[in-house]
Amino acid sequence: MIRHPAFPTEPWALSEVSLDLAALAQTESLFALSNGHIGLRGNLDEGEPSGLPGTYLAGCYELRPLPTAEAGYGNPESSQSVVNVTNGKLIRLLVDDELFDVRTGVLVDHHRVLDLRAGVLRRRATWRSPTGQGVRVTSTRLVSFVQRAVAAIAYDVEPLDVELPVVVQSELVANEPLPARAGDPRAESVPSAPLRHELHVGHGTRAVLVQSTATSRMRIGAAMDHVVDGPPGTHADVEAFEDLARVTFSAVAAPGRPLRVVKLLAYGWSDERSLPAVRDQVNAALAEALHAGWDGLVAAQRSYLDGFWERADVEIDGDDELQQAVRFALFHTLQAGARGEERAIAAKGLTGPGYDGHTFWDTETFVLPVLTCTAPTAAADALRWRWRTLELARQRAGVLGFTGAAFPWRTIGGQECSGYWPAGTAAFHVNADIADAVVRYQAATGDEAFAATSGLELLVETARLWCSLGYHDGTGRFRIDGVTGPDEYSAVADNNVFTNLMAQRNLAAAADQSERFPEQADALGVGAEEVAAWRRAASAMTVPYDEALGVHPQHEAFTEHQVWDFDSTPAEGYPLFLHVPYFDLYRKQVVKQADLVLALHLRGDAFTDEEKARDFAYYEQLTVRDSSLSASTQAVVAAETGHPDLAYDYLRESALMDLEDLQHNTRDGLHIASLAGTWTAVVAGFGGLRDHDGSLHFAPQLPGALVRISFRIVFRDRVLVVEVRSEEASYVLLRGEPLDITHHGAPAVVSQGEVLTLTVPPPAPRLRPRQPTGREPLHSRPPG
Amino acid sequence: MIRHPAFPTEPWALSEVSLDLAALAQTESLFALSNGHIGLRGNLDEGEPSGLPGTYLAGCYELRPLPTAEAGYGNPESSQSVVNVTNGKLIRLLVDDELFDVRTGVLVDHHRVLDLRAGVLRRRATWRSPTGQGVRVTSTRLVSFVQRAVAAIAYDVEPLDVELPVVVQSELVANEPLPARAGDPRAESVPSAPLRHELHVGHGTRAVLVQSTATSRMRIGAAMDHVVDGPPGTHADVEAFEDLARVTFSAVAAPGRPLRVVKLLAYGWSDERSLPAVRDQVNAALAEALHAGWDGLVAAQRSYLDGFWERADVEIDGDDELQQAVRFALFHTLQAGARGEERAIAAKGLTGPGYDGHTFWDTETFVLPVLTCTAPTAAADALRWRWRTLELARQRAGVLGFTGAAFPWRTIGGQECSGYWPAGTAAFHVNADIADAVVRYQAATGDEAFAATSGLELLVETARLWCSLGYHDGTGRFRIDGVTGPDEYSAVADNNVFTNLMAQRNLAAAADQSERFPEQADALGVGAEEVAAWRRAASAMTVPYDEALGVHPQHEAFTEHQVWDFDSTPAEGYPLFLHVPYFDLYRKQVVKQADLVLALHLRGDAFTDEEKARDFAYYEQLTVRDSSLSASTQAVVAAETGHPDLAYDYLRESALMDLEDLQHNTRDGLHIASLAGTWTAVVAGFGGLRDHDGSLHFAPQLPGALVRISFRIVFRDRVLVVEVRSEEASYVLLRGEPLDITHHGAPAVVSQGEVLTLTVPPPAPRLRPRQPTGREPLHSRPPG
Repeated sequence: MIRHPAFPTEPWALSEVSLDLAALAQTESLFALSNGHIGLRGNLDEGEPSGLPGTYLAGCYELRPLPTAEAGYGNPESSQSVVNVTNGKLIRLLVDDELFDVRTGVLVDHHRVLDLRAGVLRRRATWRSPTGQGVRVTSTRLVSFVQRAVAAIAYDVEPLDVELPVVVQSELVANEPLPARAGDPRAESVPSAPLRHELHVGHGTRAVLVQSTATSRMRIGAAMDHVVDGPPGTHADVEAFEDLARVTFSAVAAPGRPLRVVKLLAYGWSDERSLPAVRDQVNAALAEALHAGWDGLVAAQRSYLDGFWERADVEIDGDDELQQAVRFALFHTLQAGARGEERAIAAKGLTGPGYDGHTFWDTETFVLPVLTCTAPTAAADALRWRWRTLELARQRAGVLGFTGAAFPWRTIGGQECSGYWPAGTAAFHVNADIADAVVRYQAATGDEAFAATSGLELLVETARLWCSLGYHDGTGRFRIDGVTGPDEYSAVADNNVFTNLMAQRNLAAAADQSERFPEQADALGVGAEEVAAWRRAASAMTVPYDEALGVHPQHEAFTEHQVWDFDSTPAEGYPLFLHVPYFDLYRKQVVKQADLVLALHLRGDAFTDEEKARDFAYYEQLTVRDSSLSASTQAVVAAETGHPDLAYDYLRESALMDLEDLQHNTRDGLHIASLAGTWTAVVAGFGGLRDHDGSLHFAPQLPGALVRISFRIVFRDRVLVVEVRSEEASYVLLRGEPLDITHHGAPAVVSQGEVLTLTVPPPAPRLRPRQPTGREPLHSRPPG
Repeated sequence: MIRHPAFPTEPWALSEVSLDLAALAQTESLFALSNGHIGLRGNLDEGEPSGLPGTYLAGCYELRPLPTAEAGYGNPESSQSVVNVTNGKLIRLLVDDELFDVRTGVLVDHHRVLDLRAGVLRRRATWRSPTGQGVRVTSTRLVSFVQRAVAAIAYDVEPLDVELPVVVQSELVANEPLPARAGDPRAESVPSAPLRHELHVGHGTRAVLVQSTATSRMRIGAAMDHVVDGPPGTHADVEAFEDLARVTFSAVAAPGRPLRVVKLLAYGWSDERSLPAVRDQVNAALAEALHAGWDGLVAAQRSYLDGFWERADVEIDGDDELQQAVRFALFHTLQAGARGEERAIAAKGLTGPGYDGHTFWDTETFVLPVLTCTAPTAAADALRWRWRTLELARQRAGVLGFTGAAFPWRTIGGQECSGYWPAGTAAFHVNADIADAVVRYQAATGDEAFAATSGLELLVETARLWCSLGYHDGTGRFRIDGVTGPDEYSAVADNNVFTNLMAQRNLAAAADQSERFPEQADALGVGAEEVAAWRRAASAMTVPYDEALGVHPQHEAFTEHQVWDFDSTPAEGYPLFLHVPYFDLYRKQVVKQADLVLALHLRGDAFTDEEKARDFAYYEQLTVRDSSLSASTQAVVAAETGHPDLAYDYLRESALMDLEDLQHNTRDGLHIASLAGTWTAVVAGFGGLRDHDGSLHFAPQLPGALVRISFRIVFRDRVLVVEVRSEEASYVLLRGEPLDITHHGAPAVVSQGEVLTLTVPPPAPRLRPRQPTGREPLHSRPPG
């Protein structure tokens, strides 16, 4: 899909040196800007051509009915779909009466660059109109990390040869037509024309549109104002209509006498505030943006990112492509969550409408571990969003007949939106994943205020769910039957090892925290008996083991099933779920994504090293990675079990998922969890970071292809830099109190002002495990 | 729903002595007439009031899209819904300008009777109009068993007191409005106004409408003609419009000088024949009906039914209510299948639109065993319908990735119409059920022509499916993983005992018949290797057993699951599937309908007596009978395992399913399989009939409440009468060669002209097994 190499290898940017119209939808995702609240796809300023226009606001959705062929109790009746809100990115240009369109005339050059340190998308185009008039168009776009309601575009037009009349139309457009699509369950099902007019105002160079959605009753305000710097005689006009507001700038520009328009954009939405309140909210945001000015916004953006990279940067020596990909991944992970502020972080962030804009368990399992170590307030915000939806989760548990809270498998607002329960409602592990994110966040930050309130309540209500979901059988073992684990090629099975081990941690954590905060626990109705029941369930948790094979079955009976006939499955037969019925996938040994192997990582404390090695090798033969949520975990466990080169291959696959469109659906938005997993593959894979007991354990090593890796993590008000070379690793504490760690099992203390250098033991050579035919890591080695 | 006792107890009829408008929809089902080709619900002649208007033609459906919340490979995209075709039953009456409507004026008396020997529905009403004019209306309706395209109504009006002008409007009405419904997955989803006009003709007293369906392109012809016998001056008028044809008879009738209109109706449909062909077809059928005349049709109907009862009657001494219910059940079973002629026999027959008019596995498993022994040509027709759809089943298998044929879980035309695969596509046992019906039909009839052709091909293609569905594991056992058995409260489980045992029989039968018909098998591509593979799979078939409990788990791991909390489930919590998510049902020990217990019956040869007794008692505690397909099987196995009184209770539940509306959905049509199962509960239950080896084995016994049972069966051109009393049983051969049977295990020969009387061993007293709280048999004892 994306021609390789599409992008020159650079350490701190993603550049596109010429425009590829066939890959437009993909580059719109890659060049998307977001602060976690507003998301602007990287659509061209002039709107057309486009792959998929997109402007999103976190948490803002429309409802759509969930049709069912056969009614079933407890199936949700409606789903939520992310809304493509009013497009404020649009800036059209007329040059001497010719509309600037890259498909007409001659596009002499076209260059886009996403600057990972500046946090802006720059574009430069040189164009000759069909009548031969030449102009240079440059634009810089940002979505402010600092002013969350604000985005801005600086737009310059300069004739190349002679004086020319130019017209710049800066617009707000509601209900843009979207391309129709169907057939891929991962794609979106976006309602067409979801926005209903409520208000339009135009005055001076400012315009405001307020719209609302028909069913979800969300009110959305979009406002723009402009600062123009043009040749003498530059004229501005404003118009506003129901679905359109337009400010038109007319000027006669010339070489050396460009027309510059700075467009300031403000967005806001609410499902409770009145029309005047929403209108005033976006006007206020505009006022703040005007006060900061373009230069102020740019400077604040840079400063915000300097702080992020100081805490979060990862350096890779020996593979420049990977270096770029890892920073790209971190940048987009930050963009997805930075200013989410008690809204869900979607699977695609705000980069596209894939999966209808829903959030899943991957936010807690793949994204929050990264944010916890690099932008902990963003992690706290995301967890507080879950906490805000606890009442909905309690209601859902009630509908299902359980106690406690049952968080939705997929949602935007907190209501269950899954239309296929075997891979939705039945995947109860999402509850333990949330609990795990709570435990990890608390351990990494020591945020006691959170722990005693939202954290405790999340742990308690999820523990209650497990107690009513599972039961002690005649032999006393605690079983959790008929649930679906992470691997979506199995469903509704008994005692999924991942689920049971995560539930075990959930139960133990709820018990521990209830004892740490007895008053708060009491207020939640937790008594000693309930705590004892949690501990009893945790300690009696069933973890099946196949003695004959010497491996853990992913769930009970899994290893008795027929092994998928990989040798007869052609390359074009993948992803399997588009070519094979779930019926057949569920009953055979074939794994879409790490499940037992994810347990080896996240609950590594529950396995011996030998078990990990055998289990990993066994599941390698069965795992096809039809999900993007697999390579990073396989990288982590490959590294731990003595396969650093395989880990490196999986790290590359994870890192290049979207840059090379490996799953062929980057057009719908980026795979935020895979991007976040890239960090985890480096830090937990080659850094060997584990935190099962709440403190930091490292076991660094390098793959043969790399010379050096360094990464940084925030831990309890400290910033730790870890540098890994082939024979030694060093630890540096940038700030904070001395820190106890372990290095390959040996305790050590890192203190500010000193470099702690320790030896990396040589790798024990192990036979590289085999993957299913044709399902080896997608990028074994960097090109060339 | 139906007030009890609604119907006086009579041996050969079902009478309603006064009209209960609240139970109209139910009585419309009970009084439905059908010959297996045409079905007329027992709607009042004048059309209104009605519970649910309904006129159906076997195999005639419209398509509707099957919506899915999340697309999945292999899910069918459209379903078929039985069409309410042109209503020809309508006869409206005006008496002195007042429309006859039972809701107005005074309904002095109203009497309906379904005559099980005459095969007609009679109605008599005495009515005084709002202005005080009295009339008696009598009508007799039949759907001819002999002329399959023909139905007829004799309609008489006679003033009670004085001469009155009367107008009889006899109509054909297309696209009747139907009441809207939703929420119960067992109900219909009938398209509104499904019929598109193609032709309307009126001439003399005859009218023809031809319509077609929009999507399935089925062309439906309905025609009527009349024979009128009225007072002098009786006048007839005909009109025809797009959706309506009307013949109006005007007369001045008087006491002793009635107006009599005989309405002859003909129906035909085709998905390939032209408009003229369909038009001519219904005109020809009318001509034949006119030739026979009303009296001729009535006489032929009687004669047809005399033949049926001679082969099929069941007598019950000691419970008159049961006697009536059993004959009612047999009558409707015959009606469902008599003249199906290579169309599906639907779950509701042609008595209502429930389940969209689909056929399921219950036809082969519950209905065909009865037809095989009472109306074998109807059974052959039904199996030939499956054979006609083999190519569709092969295509479906191909889509799913298997070889052989995968018959649909639910269908009208042969295409899979299930929108929920865990309880649809995954229920592969339907294929073995079809094979079992083939085996049983062949054994009972010796129909070699069938066996060598359709029969063989059905066995071969279903055996091929099992070979590709299952596999030999490392230990050589043949496993069938991830399928759904009969019990719909479990799904997608490994080695369902019923499925595996039925597949085993299927595989062995395919092997046997291929060896019996080597040339024909060769033509189907069957070689010695394939036959050997079938035998190998059959002999290595996995049948799980729980050693600790000493019972067979319904499927692997079933007995390890939590037992449903029956004590906390209130009566109004049933049926569970309307109040609980499938998720929770699937993972607990709770049984909707006989599954393992059905295996104990149909594959009784695979269990010891002790196993049967223990298994039955175990599953009794878990079975809630939220399906009507359970009581009859529980009756059979209760009788076999020493619980004749419990068997009797289940027999009553099965027999009274619709007469007392026990499942609260008789309005949507009758439960044909439950009605058929009533026969099986008597014959296989108290007669103890088993035919595992193709010959007849009896083990008769009586429950305490009954004095005598007698039943008849057709077997290889013989008619055998079995009479059971408490201490002895007698066997009489009405026609045919001497017959080898066994009686309680002892061989015996029955010859024409002699009564073979044998002792019935006294029952061994056994403790009555318990059912879940509140789920005891619904009718333990006859009232009074």
